Amino acid sequence: MDEHLYPYSHLSRFAKEIFLKIGCPEEHATTAVNSLLRADLRGIDSHGVARLSGYVRLWEAKRVNSQPNIRIVHESPSTAVVDGDSGLGLVVAPQAMEIAINKAKQVGTGWVAVKNSNHFGIAGHHAMMALPHDMIGMAMTNASPLVAPTFSVERLLGTNPIAVAIPAGSQPPFVADFATTTAANGKLEILQRKEREAPLGWIQKKNGAASTNPNELKEGGALIPLGSDREHGSHKGFCLGAWVDIFSAVLSGANYGPWVPPFVSFLAPPADPVGEGIGHFFGAMRVDAFRPADEFKKHMDNWIERFRSAKTVDGETGVIIPGDPEREFETERMKNGIPLNAKVVADLREVAAKFQVQFDSSISAHP
Amino acid sequence: MDEHLYPYSHLSRFAKEIFLKIGCPEEHATTAVNSLLRADLRGIDSHGVARLSGYVRLWEAKRVNSQPNIRIVHESPSTAVVDGDSGLGLVVAPQAMEIAINKAKQVGTGWVAVKNSNHFGIAGHHAMMALPHDMIGMAMTNASPLVAPTFSVERLLGTNPIAVAIPAGSQPPFVADFATTTAANGKLEILQRKEREAPLGWIQKKNGAASTNPNELKEGGALIPLGSDREHGSHKGFCLGAWVDIFSAVLSGANYGPWVPPFVSFLAPPADPVGEGIGHFFGAMRVDAFRPADEFKKHMDNWIERFRSAKTVDGETGVIIPGDPEREFETERMKNGIPLNAKVVADLREVAAKFQVQFDSSISAHP
Repeated sequence: MDEHLYPYSHLSRFAKEIFLKIGCPEEHATTAVNSLLRADLRGIDSHGVARLSGYVRLWEAKRVNSQPNIRIVHESPSTAVVDGDSGLGLVVAPQAMEIAINKAKQVGTGWVAVKNSNHFGIAGHHAMMALPHDMIGMAMTNASPLVAPTFSVERLLGTNPIAVAIPAGSQPPFVADFATTTAANGKLEILQRKEREAPLGWIQKKNGAASTNPNELKEGGALIPLGSDREHGSHKGFCLGAWVDIFSAVLSGANYGPWVPPFVSFLAPPADPVGEGIGHFFGAMRVDAFRPADEFKKHMDNWIERFRSAKTVDGETGVIIPGDPEREFETERMKNGIPLNAKVVADLREVAAKFQVQFDSSISAHP
Repeated sequence: MDEHLYPYSHLSRFAKEIFLKIGCPEEHATTAVNSLLRADLRGIDSHGVARLSGYVRLWEAKRVNSQPNIRIVHESPSTAVVDGDSGLGLVVAPQAMEIAINKAKQVGTGWVAVKNSNHFGIAGHHAMMALPHDMIGMAMTNASPLVAPTFSVERLLGTNPIAVAIPAGSQPPFVADFATTTAANGKLEILQRKEREAPLGWIQKKNGAASTNPNELKEGGALIPLGSDREHGSHKGFCLGAWVDIFSAVLSGANYGPWVPPFVSFLAPPADPVGEGIGHFFGAMRVDAFRPADEFKKHMDNWIERFRSAKTVDGETGVIIPGDPEREFETERMKNGIPLNAKVVADLREVAAKFQVQFDSSISAHP
């Protein structure tokens, strides 16, 4: 595929200019860029600058408010509900996570449900905000309904990811961040670009029959909950997706299930909303609310080392500790640049032209 | 299979006598019976009275303390660590969940990690304790290492279940309770009894190769994390199992990963423990710490009704709401009795003889 490398600083400056152009205050624009580009750095290309034009279109459709009044509308010492005021999830989510962290400082843990928000980028980025505070961070969100529960032909859930970030001592942190489906939508997009078939167990047709066509969702097909089929536990994947949906949206007052407004601006949100915007859920737990942080981290190091050194099946180099591949991507891409394919670059050039901002491809790191 | 039905009252009286015989105080014996038999009532036969003799053997091996001093050893307004003093998990877990509920009454949520415990029965029972308080309940536990992380041939995790219980209004509550593996160990036991093969994707051989032999674990084989293989997301199942292990044991100071003491008394615990006993983690969240409980429940009803009425694939009657099958079992078995197969009855008769207690099969509900 035709790919070029772009330095982080270049993409970050460009994305910030765009967020300023749609009216974001300076501070919000910086927060949004940090959330968005974290996906590119960590190798989750589907959630990074490739989506910048999508956010712009949501703003053009007046579904994103670039100057939101993000505020707490209900709270207890360890909880809060935040109204995102239709802001960018990229901005709303870090503010809500900050509230969770502050609650945890006060009473040991903090739990924040968010309504009236939009797509928040990658869950892991928000969960990881807890790490420098010696806290465990959690983040989840509901998303556009593209997933059929076990036995359903209707698409009632999103890929509803869960992220859990856990600090360690000399080892890097444990950072799990995964869609609660067998495969995330981004994996299908890669197959579409490569014109390859999907494995059985990822997708079903409109009538519920098995499919290997990565374009099946455009025909009314659906993604499948983690587990692939009933015999292999897809009802557990459904439980996970449902849990995320309820914590994110029923607790907060956002739209849930099939009422979640779609990310793509060309699909109108349901005419009969059951709440406001999409929902997220965040948690922060102070490690020393359970045991001294040093003790905890020493055992996390031991946990990680034991699992990393497990004896593997022939041909595999090791058990992958959650967060390892993404961290390696982050180091490498921060140094060498972020690869963007021609389609994404063309899309960004279009955004650039729309706002009369320069997207100078000549400064790509490695042509 | 040779099965007879036994009334709940009969099994409950019998199990209580046994717990008293091993030295449990009256109140603990009642709590233990409620935890244990809830599994039989809810149709999770592998975790009910079928395990009574296993608990007795752990007590005989001096691995269970029947008169534990269960106490908080560390706390903050929203958290606690509980030392189970080697007590029965069946007793320790409800006490820890009670602490979580009391914390939630005070500050909105309560989170309790437990060390120095034993097998706690079914996670769902403990999570459901939150429901009458209009709270969301969560329960997880680590367990005997029988699961190989993706790419590993070593067994480093247990089936590490997660339960989430969420109250509704006119609808029954949402109660998810699932092992984080493709199949739980109890499913293998059923196949062993029926002398049938397991589906591919549940088990691997000692060298990591695929297996359909339900007895493979006795040969050094392993259960597989939810997802079955890397292509279908087994690394996500590994993330889930790891998360449960870390919350249950690294936060509390219990044994984690391969150091978890095995449930069966004929296998000695590892000689180099990294903590005390096995670990659990509990959570309770007051719904009205997020939004008025009536509002929440009205939307939960709507959520459940929408999912329950989803259009299904041909031949299926509906999407199964988590908790529905178990609740139906509970109603039916409370009325008609609990089916026990001949092997379990023989085992209970042996326990009865050992303690000179009567296990009168003549009062079985339906011979």
